This record gives sequence, C-alpha cells and structure tokens, in this order.
Amino acid sequence: MTSLLDALTGDPEITALFSPDAEIAALLRVEVALARAQGAIGAIEPADAERIRSVVRDFTPDERALRQGLARDGVVIPELVRQLRAATGEAGRSLHLGATSQDIIDTGLMLRLRALLVILESRTGAVLAEIARLDAEEGGRTLMAQTRMQAALAFTVADKLATWTRPLQGHRKRLHDLARSLPLQLGGPVGNGASFGAAYERLRADMARHLDLRDAAPWHSDRTPILDVAQGLALLTGTLGKIGQDLALLAQTEVGAIKLSGGGGSSAMAHKQNPVGAEVLVALARFNAGLLGTLSQSMVHENERSGAAWTLEWLVLPQMAEATGRALTGATDLLRGARFTG
Amino acid sequence: MTSLLDALTGDPEITALFSPDAEIAALLRVEVALARAQGAIGAIEPADAERIRSVVRDFTPDERALRQGLARDGVVIPELVRQLRAATGEAGRSLHLGATSQDIIDTGLMLRLRALLVILESRTGAVLAEIARLDAEEGGRTLMAQTRMQAALAFTVADKLATWTRPLQGHRKRLHDLARSLPLQLGGPVGNGASFGAAYERLRADMARHLDLRDAAPWHSDRTPILDVAQGLALLTGTLGKIGQDLALLAQTEVGAIKLSGGGGSSAMAHKQNPVGAEVLVALARFNAGLLGTLSQSMVHENERSGAAWTLEWLVLPQMAEATGRALTGATDLLRGARFTG
Amino acid sequence: MTSLLDALTGDPEITALFSPDAEIAALLRVEVALARAQGAIGAIEPADAERIRSVVRDFTPDERALRQGLARDGVVIPELVRQLRAATGEAGRSLHLGATSQDIIDTGLMLRLRALLVILESRTGAVLAEIARLDAEEGGRTLMAQTRMQAALAFTVADKLATWTRPLQGHRKRLHDLARSLPLQLGGPVGNGASFGAAYERLRADMARHLDLRDAAPWHSDRTPILDVAQGLALLTGTLGKIGQDLALLAQTEVGAIKLSGGGGSSAMAHKQNPVGAEVLVALARFNAGLLGTLSQSMVHENERSGAAWTLEWLVLPQMAEATGRALTGATDLLRGARFTG
Amino acid sequence: MTSLLDALTGDPEITALFSPDAEIAALLRVEVALARAQGAIGAIEPADAERIRSVVRDFTPDERALRQGLARDGVVIPELVRQLRAATGEAGRSLHLGATSQDIIDTGLMLRLRALLVILESRTGAVLAEIARLDAEEGGRTLMAQTRMQAALAFTVADKLATWTRPLQGHRKRLHDLARSLPLQLGGPVGNGASFGAAYERLRADMARHLDLRDAAPWHSDRTPILDVAQGLALLTGTLGKIGQDLALLAQTEVGAIKLSGGGGSSAMAHKQNPVGAEVLVALARFNAGLLGTLSQSMVHENERSGAAWTLEWLVLPQMAEATGRALTGATDLLRGARFTG
Repeated sequence: MTSLLDALTGDPEITALFSPDAEIAALLRVEVALARAQGAIGAIEPADAERIRSVVRDFTPDERALRQGLARDGVVIPELVRQLRAATGEAGRSLHLGATSQDIIDTGLMLRLRALLVILESRTGAVLAEIARLDAEEGGRTLMAQTRMQAALAFTVADKLATWTRPLQGHRKRLHDLARSLPLQLGGPVGNGASFGAAYERLRADMARHLDLRDAAPWHSDRTPILDVAQGLALLTGTLGKIGQDLALLAQTEVGAIKLSGGGGSSAMAHKQNPVGAEVLVALARFNAGLLGTLSQSMVHENERSGAAWTLEWLVLPQMAEATGRALTGATDLLRGARFTG
Repeated sequence: MTSLLDALTGDPEITALFSPDAEIAALLRVEVALARAQGAIGAIEPADAERIRSVVRDFTPDERALRQGLARDGVVIPELVRQLRAATGEAGRSLHLGATSQDIIDTGLMLRLRALLVILESRTGAVLAEIARLDAEEGGRTLMAQTRMQAALAFTVADKLATWTRPLQGHRKRLHDLARSLPLQLGGPVGNGASFGAAYERLRADMARHLDLRDAAPWHSDRTPILDVAQGLALLTGTLGKIGQDLALLAQTEVGAIKLSGGGGSSAMAHKQNPVGAEVLVALARFNAGLLGTLSQSMVHENERSGAAWTLEWLVLPQMAEATGRALTGATDLLRGARFTG
Repeated sequence: MTSLLDALTGDPEITALFSPDAEIAALLRVEVALARAQGAIGAIEPADAERIRSVVRDFTPDERALRQGLARDGVVIPELVRQLRAATGEAGRSLHLGATSQDIIDTGLMLRLRALLVILESRTGAVLAEIARLDAEEGGRTLMAQTRMQAALAFTVADKLATWTRPLQGHRKRLHDLARSLPLQLGGPVGNGASFGAAYERLRADMARHLDLRDAAPWHSDRTPILDVAQGLALLTGTLGKIGQDLALLAQTEVGAIKLSGGGGSSAMAHKQNPVGAEVLVALARFNAGLLGTLSQSMVHENERSGAAWTLEWLVLPQMAEATGRALTGATDLLRGARFTG
Repeated sequence: MTSLLDALTGDPEITALFSPDAEIAALLRVEVALARAQGAIGAIEPADAERIRSVVRDFTPDERALRQGLARDGVVIPELVRQLRAATGEAGRSLHLGATSQDIIDTGLMLRLRALLVILESRTGAVLAEIARLDAEEGGRTLMAQTRMQAALAFTVADKLATWTRPLQGHRKRLHDLARSLPLQLGGPVGNGASFGAAYERLRADMARHLDLRDAAPWHSDRTPILDVAQGLALLTGTLGKIGQDLALLAQTEVGAIKLSGGGGSSAMAHKQNPVGAEVLVALARFNAGLLGTLSQSMVHENERSGAAWTLEWLVLPQMAEATGRALTGATDLLRGARFTG
C-alpha cells in the first residue's frame, strides 16, 4: 500500500530494483559468483560451488526471518547465509567463504545500480528524442530569451532547446560511463583480502569479470563510487528541474510562449491549467540536490566499517534513484505535450 | 511490498498516518467539517451539510481514479470532489464551497500531524522512562566523562544520563506545544478568504474549534508551520542520534563502559556484537538533519501557491516523521538492553 | 580585504559581531562576570574579582598569540586565560575558576547572538514598515493573484502584501522571544557543575541575572539553543526569499505588475533592468536553508564535548547571521523602490 | 580583519584566489584574451586589441566603484567595462565586444579554479607522501581493525594506511583531470554565440587555446562544470574527514593505538591532549558535504541566466575551496605528528 503521492512522484520500475526480491536475488547472485570463482581457482571444492549454484536456483528465502535478521544484525547477510547453509547441507561450508557482509551487499548493490543506470540512460535518450522532435517541428520559431527574469533578446526555439540538449547529452554519457565503471567489492572482514588467501587478486579479477563489474581494491570505507552515482543522478534531475522551471516560466499566462497539454485541473478555478508536470520536475530536482548533500555526509565513514554511514546510504540512494526515474518519464511526457506558441 | 530496509528503519504505525486511507480519511473529515460549519452559519443549506456528512460516512473512494487524478492535477482534491459530488447528488453543490485544494490538503495534513505528534510525545516519554530506570538502577556508578574524544574526569552515570534527559524533556514539551498550535488552513483560491463571503472569519473560527486546530489567517504561501514541525522532528532525532553515538562510543571494545544486549551478529566474525541499534540512531539523525535543510528550501514559495515547493514538502516530511518514530522506538529498545559496566 | 561579493551579500554590521574584537570582548565579559559572581558568593576573594575586572577593562590581548593558541588548542580560551593570568598577577588564581572553555565560549556567543537578534528584530520592523507604506499607498490596487505559476483570480495589492506581513510579524516575534531566552552556559569541565562546588546553582543564577541571560542547566552537548536561533534565521530569510521571488516574478517584462527602481544594469543589453535585489534575496534564502541542514548535523555531539560538531557550528552560524542581516536590509531597499503598476 | 576562526579553519593561499585582486586580474585577463582573439580573426582592429592589452597591463581599477557597481548591477562587469573604456579611449569600442557579463565572470572563475586545483593536487600529494612515510616507518606494526565501532581482527598499519591512500590517489587524479577540463564560457547575451558573428566557433577555439581552457559550447544555464569541481572538493574533504575520524578514534585514551603530537591543550584539564587537528578534519568534511547539497540547488537555473542561482554559487564555492585547502594542510600536519603505538 504505497502512498498516494507515488502517483505523482513514484516510479514502479525503479522501485522494483530496490524491492526485497531484487535485493535478495542480487545478494544470491553474488554468493554464487563468489563460490563459482573460488571453485574455479580451487579454493573450494568445485562440487560445492556447483551445489551452491543449484540450490540457489530454486531457493525461496524466508523473508520474514530475513527481516528479523536485518533488524537484529543491521545487515541481512548473517540470516541469509544461515538459511542458505541449511539448504545446501555439507556444501554450506564453502558458502560465503572469506567474505564479509559488506562484500556481498555492496556488490549486490552495484549489480542493481547497473540495471538502474541502463534504464536511466535509455530514458534520457527518450527525453532527448522528444527535444529533437520539438526542434525539428518548431526549432525555427522565434522566442524571447529571458535572462535574470527579464526579456533579453529574441533567439530561436532551436537555440533554447540546445541549452537543454547539451547537458542531457553529457549526463547520458555520464550514466553510460558510470554503468561501466561500477566496482566489485571484495575485501573480507577487515578489507585487506587476507581471508581469501594467496589467490585473492586472481579471485577478485575472476569474479569481477564474471559479474561484469570493474575489478577494484576494496572500498569498504571509501564511498566514492556511491557518491559518483549520486552526483550523476542529482545532475540529471538538476537539468530536468531546470527544464521544468523553464517550461513553467514560459507557460505563464502573461508570457504564453509555450502551451502544455494535459493535466493541471484546479478544484476552485475551472479556467486554470496548472503546469503540474513542470512543477514536479522542480520539486524532484530540489529533493535530489538536498539528498546529495545528505548522502555526502556518509563519506565520514569510521574506521574499517561504519554501520551508521552505511545505513545512511541505504536511506538516501534508493529514493534518489526513484526521483530520477520519475523525473525522466515525467519530462518525456511533459515535452511530448509541449507546443511553442511564439 | 516494502523494502527490506524497513525492518531496520521503518515504522509501520507512522507510515500508516501517511497511507492512502489515512490521507483520504483526513481530507474527507475536512470537507465534512467545512460543510458543517457552513451549514451552521447558514452559508449552505443545513440539509446539504447533513447529507454530505452522511454520504462521507459510508463513502468508498475509487482509489485508482484518485491516483490518476493526482498524477493529472498535481493534487488529489479535484478528483475526490468529483467522486463525492457524484455520490451526494444535489447536495454536491454545497461541497467544497469556496475552498481551494490547498485548504483541504493542508488542513488534512495538520490533522495527521497532530496524531503524529501525540504518538511521538508518548514515545519520547517511553525513552525518558527507560533513562529514568537506568538512572535508578545504575546512576550511582562512576563513569569516565569524555570530552573531545579523550578521557576527561570521572563523573557518575547519573551525570551522564542527565545530559540525555534534559534535551529530551525539552523536545517532549515542544511536541506537546506543537500539537496544540497546528493551524487550520482556510483561505480560498487566492488566500484572501473572499470566496467564503462576509462570515469568513466566523466560519474559520468555527471550523478550527470543531477540528481542534488553531484558528489562523491563511498560510498558503508561508510554510512556517510545516518547518516548525520539521525542526521539532530533527531536534528529536538529533538528540537520539547523540545518544546512539554516545552508546556506540561507550560500548567500544577498548572502552567497555556499557554493554548493549541483543543483536549485532556478524557474518564473518562470530565474536563480534555490533551496536546496530546505536548506529541506526546516528544514521536517522543525519538523515533528518539533511532533510530539514532540504525542506527549508520550500520556504521560497512562489506567489500565492507553488506546486513545486508544496510537492517538495510531501516528498520530505513523511519520511522525517517515520525516521523520528523509528528512532524513538529504537532508542527505547536500545536503552532497555543497556547496562553500564564501569 | 574582503571579497568583492561582500558588496552584494555582505553585512558589515553583522560581520562586526563575529570579528576578533567582538569575540574577545564577549569572552572577557564572561570571565569578568564569572569572577564577579564568584566574588559575590565568596567562592573567590572579592579583591581578586575586582582586580580581574579592572585588569580586563584595560586589557589588550596579543591577538597573534591568540590565533596561534586557537590553531593549537582548537579553542582560544587556554591562551586567553594565560594572557589574562599574566596580566592579573596573583588574582589570576581566581580567574576562570571551575570553568571550562566551552562555558566561556558558548556564553560569549549568546551575548553576541542577543546583539544580533536585537538588530535583526529592528530590521524586520523596517521591512514591515516598508510593506505598510506600500499598503497605504497602493493597497487598493487590483492585482492578479498567481497560483501554481498561472494567473488565478484578481485580488488586491493589500491581499498580496498581507501574505508577506503575516509571516514577517511571526518571525519578528520569534526573534524577540529568542533574544530573551538565550541560555547561560556554565557546567565546568564535564558539564555537571561539580567544579563550582556547593554554591553552583546560586552562582549560575547570579551570573545569568548579571548577564541578562536565561539561567539554564548545562547544555554542552545539547545544541538545541543554537539550532533554534538558526531556525529563526532560516525562516526569516525563507520569507524574504519568497518576497524576492514574488517581486522577480511580478517584475517580469511580460507580467509588468511591479516596477523595481534602481540597479540591474547589463553589460550587453542596455535596455534591461535586472531585479538584482530580488534575486539576491532568493540566493540568500537557499543559502540559509542549506546551511540549516548542515548545522543540524552538529546535534550528533559525541559524549560530553565534541570538537568536531562544535567547530561545525562556528563555520556555519556566523554566515547564516550575515546572510540574514543582508537579506533584511536588501529587502527594505528593494521594497522602498517598488511600485505596483497594475 | 578576518575572524579568529580563520586560525583554525582558514587558508590564506586559497582565500587569495577569491580576493578582489585575483578576481579582477582574472576578469581583465579574459577581456584581454577576448580582444586578442577578436583581433587575430579580424573581428576588431588589431591595434585596438593591442591597446586594450597594454592599458590593462597598467590598469588600476577603482575598487570602491567596482563594489558599488556590483551592489547595483549584481555583477561587476558593467562597471569594470566602464572604467576600462574610460582608460582605453577609442579602442574601448572593441572591448567586451559581443560578450555578456557571464562570459567574462565564468571564464575568469575557471582560470582561478585551475589555479586552485593545481594547488590542491599538489597538497594532496603532500598528504600522500606523509602516509607513505608512515607506511615506510610503521607499516609493519599490528593494529586492531575496527568495524562497526567494535574491535574486529588484527591487521597491519600498512593495511590501514592503504584505506586512506587509495581514495586520495583517486581524488588526486580527479583534481588533475578537472584542472584540464575546465571549459571556456563564451556565448554572448543569450548564449547562442550570435553576437560574435560568423567566426564565433573559431573565436571560441582560439580563445580557449590561448587561455588553456577547454573549448566548449556555452554553458550559461548548465552548471555541471561547477558541480563537478564541487563534487571533487567534497569527496576530498570527505576522505580527509574520514582520516580525521579514524585518528580521533584511534587516539582515544582507552584505545591508545596512535599518538598525535602537538596541540590540544585544555583550559580546565591540564592532563588532556585533544585531537584538535583530527576534529577539524571532521568538521570541514561535514561542512563541505552540506555545502555540496546547497550548491546543487543552483542546477535549477531559470531560463537563459538566473541571477539567483548564480549568486548562490558565489556564496558557496569559495568556501568549499578554502575548507578543502585547509583540510589538506591540516591533514599533512596531523599525519606528520602521528605515531602508531600498537
């Protein structure tokens, strides 16, 4: 039962990436990848790795117990590993070997962030396509440029649209590059890899290749990769918020430089058509801007692992993702219904 | 299907205050109160008011259509009023008379914030009771005070607990006072009350009395009441975060000044008992601190009503409320299991 | 040599409250008040108190050494007390007796915040006076109300101005009340007052009365008083930013509902008159909103004294004060030159 | 007369980059570069370009009038150009030709940000060198790793130091790359380059090459370049704050894993040595984290130029720079005096 507001600002496809099912699936995939890689280099019995893989394929976790475990331990892994070991029998000895909860959770998050970035990149393309369509249809029109809230000089709709297209192209490339640079997390309990033995670096490289992540030294207490994704999201909603603000300003009754179709009914003034979609873009931009600052506090990560800083990430990042997702579909819808009238 | 993280940081009782059911119920209550008050002063037919009241009692809204309306209009009221009018027949002419969406939505929020504040006040009392119990049982023990991350001088557990009790007592009083000062919102489309006619101030006073809210001039574009509630929440989680930080520091292996029972299992190090509950308090404090800054951006509320600033409030305030609710129950649980060992 | 930007956003009168001279003067005043009160209750020799008072009257600190001391110790008090002791001779034994640096620094800050609040209250009155003048001169004009960035219904200039006046009156009262509730800080090294002996509470009450502050239990690790002042500042700049945003929107070329005199020249477009003063109000509002969230992080104050959280306050609060001061004078100037033209 | 706090958190070398002299020098350099490039392509008389260059070389601006101009116009350029024209005589017709204030100001800022980034990169190297020295001297010692505020397993000082080195190396590379990607701003009054005529793109390329900036399409209303620099600063102070937090935790009396020399005297407890330098790093990290969120609000940049969003940048970015500068020198000093004692 989600809040009514979800109808305005939510994004079911993105929310699904942070659902229990998606989270657990990602964690399981990481445990299997770890066992597979350890089997391949002989750190565990290959048969154990195969058994783990096969059990996980049909594994249905006890979600209620997982929630209790998370509430108790602050992370879901101890209980998940317990359930998996119960299901894998003797091969359970080879499960999660040398790993710490953070290895599994951070790597699992990277897998979901990649899915997120791919979706967002594609949606940014859709926004760009709408702008290109507008440009093709109306780029030649004259429009009054506005600087510092005053009419400046006339330019063209094409000139205006270029100020939206350029940053969005940059953000799309950023999302693309980010998706290809997400790092594997594998460091063991204290982040030095010692628990994985001599073949640690080979194990890491193999696992990274298999999961299609970037091989990287442990970053347990360095949250730069998280912050770089968040920055990408905030910049994107920032530009979309700028577009929303522009549209709301251009659509003002007295300015009348653009017409926005659809929506915006008022309960008290039947003649009004409110630029609801544009306003939502501004709200989501300011929301994500603030959340970026809040998330940045998590860089102060105490010693080898900070439960406080880590939990803060989990509170903030998913909603930045959802806000970005919705801003993109909202922008596409809004632009689709926009018509310059100058 | 809520995220797994809810097990650690969620609060179902508080979430319920922001559920569709609770939101719609509050909106309906405000529409009924408006009709009742207008009936009482003769602005509408008393029979219409009675009919509205009676229809609402058994009214089941079409939630799907409400969500569509919200997505379309940016506010749920136009569609809700449409559904209500369809259900009330002729009396529908007297429904929502003179009101604007914001009157109903802001007043409905105040009703839910009052319920929130009452819950939080009571829970703050529970935290204080746990501290009082600790004080009664262990207040006489000696404890090393710590200033600037260094051992300072010995004082007593009672001295320490007093530094937690004093701000919490202040916050409890603040919640109490806030709950009694929440303002009615009633201004009509452009916030000057003109749509309610000559009896506007009488209407407002009557409606405020009936809903047990503070009679107030319209505050459509002045969001101080919202920010004052948010400040109360952030201060409260701030103090609880401070308590959590203190507990985590005192429970460090090398300090050993306090023992926290329950929880904190590690997937890699069986000997560890992590101060999970304490860390969550710190995370929730930093979360709310950042959200307060984000919410403050909504003070820049354009002209007579800003959809952008208003939507930003809806994105931020409910989660501040939920974070506060969980921090309170978390603190109570944590303190219940704490034992000074000096 | 202050930055050029100070010409646009600085406030010399407020900056002066945070100058070395003002800071040292406040600290000295607190040390003298402590000695006076201790002399009065017989905790130190009355002659020592008198000697301290008399030495301080003509005392010129070695500011360079103070800066070195601050850089070394994180607080200026150890070096200041050293210099004072060198100047007071034998009476130096009675100086700073039982106190900790935080007692002196926090109390000294309260003295300067009171001066700040008095200035801001008065300046808020000046803004209100300008609005009242506008109301008297132009309140009867018709103006198009704007909701959600669209023309709504006509109301009057008086209706509009009331939406500015009401929150400002509330903020003015808040400043007034805050100025009268600023607490003395006196707790000694570990915040339990033990270092002041049996007469601690009498000493505190006497000192508070003498400094015209509120007597209060120590709040070393509870920063609520600081946050309440900051909230007062952010709300005030929030409302002024809202006024600035309204003015910029009303002054748009196509809207033309208001004319702003003075300023706003462009280097490239001679015909333009930019609403510079209005834009600055928006910038200062968003600045303070963000700073409020940053400052709120300092509520997580570790144990009996956190150097990190305390230093964060010093970084943030003075500039919130300066931004507020400038926003007030800026608003007065801006409103003085505003003329409704509807 | 700077505040006393500057002794603890200020950075004169960085402040100097934002001084009036440095700011004006950068603006003049841009005006000269523009004239030079326009002379080279024949857009203005080469003699005019030479005259402008030669006048600027000996030009002493009237700073008082510049401040008045800035306060009046919201930007300093109109008055600066006026003064320059008065000094250049007939060649003044060729000064600032086609440009808008934002072209000069943003490009001038880029020149100063490059100087900033070069300094910060070099200082990051100094921090890394101190860590390398510590590693060489003490890397082999055993140290208790701490996860979630609890002793975890023993590792080595070298393992610990690697968690500081890795992110710092990444940040140093980021600063290096940022310094080489700072974009020229040249778009003319409404950002489409039309005012520069047919040779616009050649002019831009030439000017970028001459100023050693990246040639870029106008980004008047897309503040991504500013935000990317700010992100680099916040990540850097974030890591330094993490190091500071680690040091403060390791230096706790009861932990005693590290000894920090110098500083930290207490006015009340002679036995104490407070980890002042470490605490300051935490404060600066939290400060910059919050400022990043505040600055991100400026992405919502209305239409072709937003005075409000732009002014917000000026309020925030210089102090992020200064905080970063001081955090770097502070970290170097702190690490120089650190000795592991396990």
